[in-house]
Amino acid sequence: MRGFITPERLERIKAVLSRRQKDVTLVMDNIWDPHNVSAILRSCDAFGLHRVHLYYTTEKWPDLGKKSSASAKKWVERVRHDDPAEMLDGFQKAGVQVIRTGFSETAKPLHAFDFTIPTAVILSNEHRGAAPELVEQVAEELYIPMQGMVQSLNVSVAAAVILYEMFSQRRRAGLLDTPAFSPEELEALTQEWSDR
Amino acid sequence: MRGFITPERLERIKAVLSRRQKDVTLVMDNIWDPHNVSAILRSCDAFGLHRVHLYYTTEKWPDLGKKSSASAKKWVERVRHDDPAEMLDGFQKAGVQVIRTGFSETAKPLHAFDFTIPTAVILSNEHRGAAPELVEQVAEELYIPMQGMVQSLNVSVAAAVILYEMFSQRRRAGLLDTPAFSPEELEALTQEWSDR
Repeated sequence: MRGFITPERLERIKAVLSRRQKDVTLVMDNIWDPHNVSAILRSCDAFGLHRVHLYYTTEKWPDLGKKSSASAKKWVERVRHDDPAEMLDGFQKAGVQVIRTGFSETAKPLHAFDFTIPTAVILSNEHRGAAPELVEQVAEELYIPMQGMVQSLNVSVAAAVILYEMFSQRRRAGLLDTPAFSPEELEALTQEWSDR
Repeated sequence: MRGFITPERLERIKAVLSRRQKDVTLVMDNIWDPHNVSAILRSCDAFGLHRVHLYYTTEKWPDLGKKSSASAKKWVERVRHDDPAEMLDGFQKAGVQVIRTGFSETAKPLHAFDFTIPTAVILSNEHRGAAPELVEQVAEELYIPMQGMVQSLNVSVAAAVILYEMFSQRRRAGLLDTPAFSPEELEALTQEWSDR
């Protein structure tokens, strides 16, 4: 049963769902700072990601509180993992290219990747870098081109830049204009979101 | 007199200065939160802005403290303004297009603007919007395309996305490969930065 919902809100939910991208995603690798996590979820919602993956093995998922900046978490599906092999196998079976952020010699700049194909980007803790077991199992590495004296970006800023590049490539390829979900999936999701 | 500086650091300073962009800039319009201001300066440094303009009329420039995240402020020139007409006249005389962030009917998406020409983007407080006197005098308005349930981005995230779009357009146009400064300017700036 659908609770009370205004026609405007229902239209908004339908419009947002019709542009949700289900085959690009981020993996949040032990990012613990609640401000950064909130900002990342807000950017995921803004740039139309349907789902994020949470890989928390050495850090805890933070308490995001009830601030308005945390409200985006309602609109982004979250899938928890603790087994790296299981997570990466899942991506591989679904034909998803997996890329991690990093700075090694073989890393390629963000814009060199094709984000119109199914993709998961592993976003790691800015100080500690990617979890060693993920470094071992994921060869593809991306960096955000920078040209400053301070060679790093805040992790939520890095996430937004990656999402914007994904989004821009998909916009140019016309992928945002065709719903990623079937009419039945859209109907089910609309019902579910209306109750949130 | 140049103080002690390692050859590596000198090379780094020269490399960074040779890619600094002097004809694109941000105007920070009363952005008061120190975390956001630090993150914005860090992104300005990372994406190669030589200078930012500070327009603080209703809010104070925040104390950024001594945290490492604030260290980028050393490498981005800051110009203070309190007279809007004087600031905007200065841009106009220098042939700089001025754009503000906003959401009105006539706003255009970020990617619709040409950032290869001299540009200043006025970045405003995310809650209060642009200062009224700037709204009145600046017609061009840009928005970051979003497709989520929560229709806003953190202001430091918005800044990074704008800077990344500027940077990407300039990279594609080959503008990053030619120094914006003359050899004499580069020599003077190298000396100045070596003493910081």
